[in-house]
Amino acid sequence: MHTIPVGVLGASGYAGRELCALIYRHPALSLAFATANSQRGETITLPLGGTVTFQATDDVRLQDAALIFTALPHGTSAEWVARARAAGARVVDLSHDHRIGNGASDGIPYGLTELRREQVRHAPLVANPGCYPTSALVPLAPLVARGLIAPEGTVHIHSASGVSGAGLTARLDLLFGEVTENFRAYGTGNAHRHLNEMRAFAAELGSDAELCFTPHLLPVARGILSTITVPLTAPLDDVLAPFREHYAGERFIEVVDALPELRQVQHRNVVRLTARAMAGTRRPMLQVFSAIDNLMKGAAGQALQNANLMLGLDEAAGLPA
Amino acid sequence: MHTIPVGVLGASGYAGRELCALIYRHPALSLAFATANSQRGETITLPLGGTVTFQATDDVRLQDAALIFTALPHGTSAEWVARARAAGARVVDLSHDHRIGNGASDGIPYGLTELRREQVRHAPLVANPGCYPTSALVPLAPLVARGLIAPEGTVHIHSASGVSGAGLTARLDLLFGEVTENFRAYGTGNAHRHLNEMRAFAAELGSDAELCFTPHLLPVARGILSTITVPLTAPLDDVLAPFREHYAGERFIEVVDALPELRQVQHRNVVRLTARAMAGTRRPMLQVFSAIDNLMKGAAGQALQNANLMLGLDEAAGLPA
Amino acid sequence: MHTIPVGVLGASGYAGRELCALIYRHPALSLAFATANSQRGETITLPLGGTVTFQATDDVRLQDAALIFTALPHGTSAEWVARARAAGARVVDLSHDHRIGNGASDGIPYGLTELRREQVRHAPLVANPGCYPTSALVPLAPLVARGLIAPEGTVHIHSASGVSGAGLTARLDLLFGEVTENFRAYGTGNAHRHLNEMRAFAAELGSDAELCFTPHLLPVARGILSTITVPLTAPLDDVLAPFREHYAGERFIEVVDALPELRQVQHRNVVRLTARAMAGTRRPMLQVFSAIDNLMKGAAGQALQNANLMLGLDEAAGLPA
Amino acid sequence: MHTIPVGVLGASGYAGRELCALIYRHPALSLAFATANSQRGETITLPLGGTVTFQATDDVRLQDAALIFTALPHGTSAEWVARARAAGARVVDLSHDHRIGNGASDGIPYGLTELRREQVRHAPLVANPGCYPTSALVPLAPLVARGLIAPEGTVHIHSASGVSGAGLTARLDLLFGEVTENFRAYGTGNAHRHLNEMRAFAAELGSDAELCFTPHLLPVARGILSTITVPLTAPLDDVLAPFREHYAGERFIEVVDALPELRQVQHRNVVRLTARAMAGTRRPMLQVFSAIDNLMKGAAGQALQNANLMLGLDEAAGLPA
Repeated sequence: MHTIPVGVLGASGYAGRELCALIYRHPALSLAFATANSQRGETITLPLGGTVTFQATDDVRLQDAALIFTALPHGTSAEWVARARAAGARVVDLSHDHRIGNGASDGIPYGLTELRREQVRHAPLVANPGCYPTSALVPLAPLVARGLIAPEGTVHIHSASGVSGAGLTARLDLLFGEVTENFRAYGTGNAHRHLNEMRAFAAELGSDAELCFTPHLLPVARGILSTITVPLTAPLDDVLAPFREHYAGERFIEVVDALPELRQVQHRNVVRLTARAMAGTRRPMLQVFSAIDNLMKGAAGQALQNANLMLGLDEAAGLPA
Repeated sequence: MHTIPVGVLGASGYAGRELCALIYRHPALSLAFATANSQRGETITLPLGGTVTFQATDDVRLQDAALIFTALPHGTSAEWVARARAAGARVVDLSHDHRIGNGASDGIPYGLTELRREQVRHAPLVANPGCYPTSALVPLAPLVARGLIAPEGTVHIHSASGVSGAGLTARLDLLFGEVTENFRAYGTGNAHRHLNEMRAFAAELGSDAELCFTPHLLPVARGILSTITVPLTAPLDDVLAPFREHYAGERFIEVVDALPELRQVQHRNVVRLTARAMAGTRRPMLQVFSAIDNLMKGAAGQALQNANLMLGLDEAAGLPA
Repeated sequence: MHTIPVGVLGASGYAGRELCALIYRHPALSLAFATANSQRGETITLPLGGTVTFQATDDVRLQDAALIFTALPHGTSAEWVARARAAGARVVDLSHDHRIGNGASDGIPYGLTELRREQVRHAPLVANPGCYPTSALVPLAPLVARGLIAPEGTVHIHSASGVSGAGLTARLDLLFGEVTENFRAYGTGNAHRHLNEMRAFAAELGSDAELCFTPHLLPVARGILSTITVPLTAPLDDVLAPFREHYAGERFIEVVDALPELRQVQHRNVVRLTARAMAGTRRPMLQVFSAIDNLMKGAAGQALQNANLMLGLDEAAGLPA
Repeated sequence: MHTIPVGVLGASGYAGRELCALIYRHPALSLAFATANSQRGETITLPLGGTVTFQATDDVRLQDAALIFTALPHGTSAEWVARARAAGARVVDLSHDHRIGNGASDGIPYGLTELRREQVRHAPLVANPGCYPTSALVPLAPLVARGLIAPEGTVHIHSASGVSGAGLTARLDLLFGEVTENFRAYGTGNAHRHLNEMRAFAAELGSDAELCFTPHLLPVARGILSTITVPLTAPLDDVLAPFREHYAGERFIEVVDALPELRQVQHRNVVRLTARAMAGTRRPMLQVFSAIDNLMKGAAGQALQNANLMLGLDEAAGLPA
């Protein structure tokens, strides 16, 4: 069987490398090129074996790939998306340049796969969601769809992420000596740009609930845990029922009884979630806990899930679930 | 100058050892005895040098100490508090047996030192606060005192603690191999017993706000960060002013501009806090971030701070701030 | 195609769980039973998905499995090996009960696969090697075979292991709070039992060199790095040549130029190694650096590699390399 | 009492900050200036409280300090040492520019305090030792002095250090995401420059033993553990006796029975060591284990210990032991 050639622009960061590793082991895809201007000519070993040699972005023939993943820095991605499209390639853009709430997103599906599967399947360009929004919107969608969120209340999204979320960048505050045995909030006061993305997609889903979002930096390499508090219109008999119904049959959404932990999702393309009723509150309140691997379902894994759909492959091909 | 003899019952846990280390370096105290039934006869090296030899609790003469710290397991402490009192010693109880909201606390000051200084000074027995309540109540008190918390709203306390908060106990889920690169919530659904303590003391301060509390387990040895979201009655011009005024002159409360981090408070007897207004919300909302070392201001450090007051010493004697 | 049923006795420890996870994803094997007396009836989620329910060891029908892995505590394994053999099953024993240098090992192949492939293929019982010996003997074998080790010198094996090597046991010294930010030696003075295993197999390979071995405990979950200093009979023009020749074509031995790191081998069934000449020494001296995942090539992975051979399957089936 | 003004050139790195923190709490010293060109004008909070504001190195009056610590990058320190001397200040140089075996060291004492106390006391300039050499030479000196090291044998120094040893520099390979759960050797093949320093000082002590040295990078913030294997001229009845005798009365050398761990020495200005005889070797062999905090006894702490001596103060003033 012939494999389908795909390319990765901006392959030297954490998400780009993860993509290369997934493509390397994918049964139906081959890596036509992987670019990284700062490391052109370098060959690296991929996490579970195999190697990749980076090329300069200007040196590759975009038309050699049927589909291109753009994992370039935010702001510089849009230009390369346009070039890739002009070369006839379909595109999954991992930057926020075309994401809902962040810029030019008209008609471009927001690739939260389980919620936008049909749009993704036929789109020439998909905007791959941010890691925090994925961890928050998958839990919120079933509640929005059922009208369960009290409109006058506030949804509090409290998230903690491993350092790979900040990218493979040489910042002093990301050194081991600064992160180990430490924990801190950042992007506080509702200032993190992922909040816009969450608000815009929640609105598209039909929610007018107020969202607040506070991210924190964990001393772990990968993983996001989001603790989401939701005021309800009415108490729920079975707090897991909305999630179980909404995601019935989904291979990458795990609705479970126990509280999810980061290590249950690392290196896997899943959202793992559960819910608890809050005791002793005046109005009914639900807490939802979701765990993802920010590089997998939060970036490269979901990008590949979308690409599989776009290329007519099994949605789960090459994806550890 | 003579030193004052003090004793520690239950000295082999994390809080007990920290207390022994603090007493060892204290300029005006000496350690009359340190008990640990399971390790009787063992000599351990204290963190910053010095050694201590544990005795059986039944083998020590309680009357040899002017003041006794009880760091025994919750539930078994009350009996030894009574014996220590009968032997004429004053007592700082680190268990929750006599804490507000947790049991028999009539007339026993809740030793959140900065908020109950005068009661502590003259009390025969002080109930030392829990670690999470310390991290939450110090930030909340100035807002309660100024009537700033919207009564119909909900205060969300979202905390993350290092593993020493769970004590020095041989549990599989606390092994390095299970905690490293991991993060998870626990005591969810408002089920953690520290919430009662917070609610009871907030009520004593005059608050009728609804409190919700969710703790998490961090892959760090020590430290708590609490992210507290508070609905306000009105916007604040200067979000730090209530805290700066309330704690003016306090040596162990640090109101700062930057977001607090665990490493800024480890091994120190301080609460470090800041606040931010939440942008884009319908009603004014404040977020307060507080960091403490759960073994210092959250346990042994505050216990010594209280003991210093009770013994007429400088409140800061022997305490790294 | 029918799958071959295999069983795991002692499946609740780190190595046992790893085995269950590997079998779960294996294309040609199925898990007939997994036993853990202390957790009988419990169902756990495996690392990369799937679940397993533990049974009591006495409750399973050993004859239901064509091959049985015994991952029981050292000392108790031999009895169950005998029962499994009596029930007609072939056995891979992960304990040291039948390992060379450790006890009753007459005629039982020492399953360092690449060095004993033919014996393993036809054996009813294979003694799976220890983790440290695997990390040391794979690098030493090519040097022994070529007579390169100076007989009057001493080979120094200095190893550091992640905590999973100590097993999933509730020991205070393995708590996160005791291991994080720490490092220490143990089993010093040549007292670790893995040294006997190394010496006995090196002798079987034909070496009379003196071996010294010092293990250390790393604050990581999994992985062993061994730094091995070898006095040579003569300088080597190409320090990697002996290893490249000896292991040519091997899929699970990676001889590389760069220094190996733990993260390059985690979750993979490989030995990754390189070598360096020591500058400025009187006689020629070589340093070999080898990295393995102690739960994969150091335990469960190699056990499966051996089982694949014994069952006539592709040696690499179900093994991430 | 007047305090003595001291200055720190190159104060923004890990060692420089540690020095500022020690000086801040020192009973007899005050900080006249702290320079850091890249962070001029910035104010930072010191680890245990207090703040310091960095100045440009060209902007300070060197004559304002009675003693100056130079913690500048290797290679650029020598020039500032000369300027500081010209301004009349005594100098403790933390770089390797004037260290034995590394460059211009004629007549400049090598400040391994316990071994060169009298030379340090009266010197205008002291070369503060490297971290690895401190961890190795303190254990070796008693053996050299007693002629216990077999001259034809090789001393193997196998060390592992926390990341602060690499400095506060924005290198990708020092990011948390690259160091956590990892371990690797570096400077292999006897290529690390600290080996020259060890060899030169060992020779000055009278040793002609061959030294080999291999450093490793630990996933911890601070601390060095050295495992040193020494061939002996004869077996020792009491393996600790040489160390206990040699360092009798020393406040910063801890000769102990148990194996030293990093956490026992972190934030303390000590070398903690023990020794074990190697069993089953042809000739007698000793293994010595030493632990230090690389930023304290390995850098800033020992620098202050030397400065205390030079200024006629108690050698232990301001130093946690």
